[in-house]
Amino acid sequence: MSAGWFRRRFLPGGPLPGPRPAGPRSSPVPYHRPRFLRGSGSSPGSTDASRRPDVRPVRSPARGRTLPWNAGYAEVINAEKSEFNEDQAACGKLCIRRCEFGIEEDQEWLTVCPEEFLTGHYWALFDGHGGPAAAILAANTLHSCLRRQLEAVVEGMMATQPPMHLSGRCVCSSDPQFVEEKGIRAEDLVIGALENAFQECDDVIGRELEASGQMGGCTALVAVFLQGKLYVANAGDSRAILVRRDEIRVLSSECTPETERQRIQQLAFTYPELLAGEFTRLEFPRRLKGDDLGQKVLFRDHHMRGWSYKQVEKSDLKYPLIHGQGRQARLLGTLAVSRGLGDHQLRVLDTNIQLKPFLLSIPQVTVLDVDQLALQEDDVVVMATDGLWDVLSNEQVALLVRSFLTSNQKDDPHRFSELAKMLIHNTQGKDNGATGEGQVSYDDVSVFVIPLHSQAQEGSGH
Amino acid sequence: MSAGWFRRRFLPGGPLPGPRPAGPRSSPVPYHRPRFLRGSGSSPGSTDASRRPDVRPVRSPARGRTLPWNAGYAEVINAEKSEFNEDQAACGKLCIRRCEFGIEEDQEWLTVCPEEFLTGHYWALFDGHGGPAAAILAANTLHSCLRRQLEAVVEGMMATQPPMHLSGRCVCSSDPQFVEEKGIRAEDLVIGALENAFQECDDVIGRELEASGQMGGCTALVAVFLQGKLYVANAGDSRAILVRRDEIRVLSSECTPETERQRIQQLAFTYPELLAGEFTRLEFPRRLKGDDLGQKVLFRDHHMRGWSYKQVEKSDLKYPLIHGQGRQARLLGTLAVSRGLGDHQLRVLDTNIQLKPFLLSIPQVTVLDVDQLALQEDDVVVMATDGLWDVLSNEQVALLVRSFLTSNQKDDPHRFSELAKMLIHNTQGKDNGATGEGQVSYDDVSVFVIPLHSQAQEGSGH
Repeated sequence: MSAGWFRRRFLPGGPLPGPRPAGPRSSPVPYHRPRFLRGSGSSPGSTDASRRPDVRPVRSPARGRTLPWNAGYAEVINAEKSEFNEDQAACGKLCIRRCEFGIEEDQEWLTVCPEEFLTGHYWALFDGHGGPAAAILAANTLHSCLRRQLEAVVEGMMATQPPMHLSGRCVCSSDPQFVEEKGIRAEDLVIGALENAFQECDDVIGRELEASGQMGGCTALVAVFLQGKLYVANAGDSRAILVRRDEIRVLSSECTPETERQRIQQLAFTYPELLAGEFTRLEFPRRLKGDDLGQKVLFRDHHMRGWSYKQVEKSDLKYPLIHGQGRQARLLGTLAVSRGLGDHQLRVLDTNIQLKPFLLSIPQVTVLDVDQLALQEDDVVVMATDGLWDVLSNEQVALLVRSFLTSNQKDDPHRFSELAKMLIHNTQGKDNGATGEGQVSYDDVSVFVIPLHSQAQEGSGH
Repeated sequence: MSAGWFRRRFLPGGPLPGPRPAGPRSSPVPYHRPRFLRGSGSSPGSTDASRRPDVRPVRSPARGRTLPWNAGYAEVINAEKSEFNEDQAACGKLCIRRCEFGIEEDQEWLTVCPEEFLTGHYWALFDGHGGPAAAILAANTLHSCLRRQLEAVVEGMMATQPPMHLSGRCVCSSDPQFVEEKGIRAEDLVIGALENAFQECDDVIGRELEASGQMGGCTALVAVFLQGKLYVANAGDSRAILVRRDEIRVLSSECTPETERQRIQQLAFTYPELLAGEFTRLEFPRRLKGDDLGQKVLFRDHHMRGWSYKQVEKSDLKYPLIHGQGRQARLLGTLAVSRGLGDHQLRVLDTNIQLKPFLLSIPQVTVLDVDQLALQEDDVVVMATDGLWDVLSNEQVALLVRSFLTSNQKDDPHRFSELAKMLIHNTQGKDNGATGEGQVSYDDVSVFVIPLHSQAQEGSGH
């Protein structure tokens, strides 16, 4: 994800009160030629894992390694927008321990691995902007937040239906009926844990960045395989899709200024002081200028999904709260995403206008019931940062995946790793038969390929 | 729609700071036996129509009349919750006049019918609560607001692509490209006009009720057939479905405290003073009581789609902002809908807590491209207030519709009228072969049956 980058032709008005272009993506010749990085992250079981035997994070760049539990295969490329890769990845086994019943505040944990209560798998991609600091912190922190949040509700998750009281005590005889009528299931506790973990991680990043005098933010895309279900939590513009022989299923939705326009405009309507008189919350097809004054032009406000016409006043000539469209849309002329972690200090260039009030750290979560799918060996989840999706459509990626897996030996232990590598190569302008195009991404690109079949088989063993 | 009604068993806690039950729906024996009303509304061409030749409203109760333009067939029943029917209906031909180009503020209208620019059809159902005043005002007003809003953008609607400037003047040569990139189509102007018309009508109702010292609110479900498309705008818990031989398509989504929980909780989070310390914005499976104090119970807050556990504090024992589930859910213990018109004065019983800040007058709008459907003669849209949907599912209604239309003569001019009547009868506990059940609605019930085929044929003649 590139922050602060925009296409000049969308700016017919005056100077932009936003940061200078940061990325080379729009240049016909790349600013720096991207190069492949050698893996330099910690290996499974190292660092944190030695201190915390119940969490075994694998940090980025995790390049084409076959992990001990068929974890999925990551490939990362640095476009050298910054010295460190702004894309960061993490994956690992998630071991959720059970707390002793009844001792609520002073919990006694079962800390030895063989007594783990519930295990799952965790994959995460973080796409930083304004430097890699937030992405690195998120890669180091989010899985711990998630484990903690899951451990806080694990007793409820293990029941057929979550009990009204975590203690299992029934205060009213009809409590199970109330829970039933609300339709609360175990998966709702995992969704809640993901939502809370993102928020907790955002708080940690805010404190850490402030303490160290650093800046920056990142998107976060997380997949968790737990109890036969795949949970995909997304805050930003990365994407996960499931590719099967006859089907593509999109597992995440992007959170951008455009997809969340009404929420953002509504906030500016409620708190106009957030715009400090510098921006207009109204949306127009382009930025207005003096010649438009007095004319009736297309616009929409926070309450509208449709469009109407309004007579242009002087205040409408201000820079728009959301400007541009599609992947070029920017919030306050600065940011291409509307959700993510960090950015606590981010301000519009040369102003005191903060972006954080408009950003949500809460992810959108989708659930895939893997146990209900008749999984084939070649069914994979592809998770990638926007660097991939900027140049390849879902259909193109699916075509590449199917073609690759068909022509490679099923018993090759490296084939998913090679597939991730091949997808990255396809963003570097290498013409190939499958897509027939040679598009180039000048952004960092990270790809996970997760063979769902292996997860389901391993999961069923627990 | 019944206001202030709730099931006692959901209230294990203390006394409810809401109004007394108003409706007899929960009683095993109806409070008043419903009876069919004779039509008493104005007939086509009367009243308003004589003054305004371009609008020909037909007001409720419009009982089984064959209207001059195959308008659809309405059937209304009064459950006698109030002396006047709280359900109100309106339908009519929508004649949208064109303003003279270039004269923007001091517009010259073409006022003679043969010179009408664009015609459409309009159907609307309003389900009042706290008396029929708001529903009657809405039935008398909304079509005028909509006509005015459409006339304000009609030039843009007639273009292949709405121009950036309503005057058609091109300030920038790339203006059409900006509109194209935003994906703005003529139908977006109709959606915008519907959104603005609902808001304008809500303002009118607020002023009129205040001036006359009256109270009340209503839901609003509007269908508009225009330029080969059917627009369905809904603010409340009425519903419209399309019934075809092999398909049921839901054309509206209900706006209830449950479907809009996050928006409502978010508002209470932003403006806690709206709850005056009397309510908790948190959602629990049931209202909490003293025995729950200190326990960890299931809950969710505004940012959560999932659930988690929290330790119960004293403030959690307050009455919940949203209470109950499904059709029993109530906002502030008072109202079953989260969008609608009116209710400007509505307060929680014995408090000064207002409901209006939580209510939206903006509808959710869906668009059906009728020209793209291979329409059959028996394809109909069924619009009805919640009195119908409380006792019949979409599938049951579709079954009744198909069975009725198959067994009735295609050339019978009264068959759609009879169908509407039959659907109403099926809410009155008459056992019948199609559903095999004899469920009873004690609410007002209104049904429109609109033969889409006729509209499309008539529309294509223009």
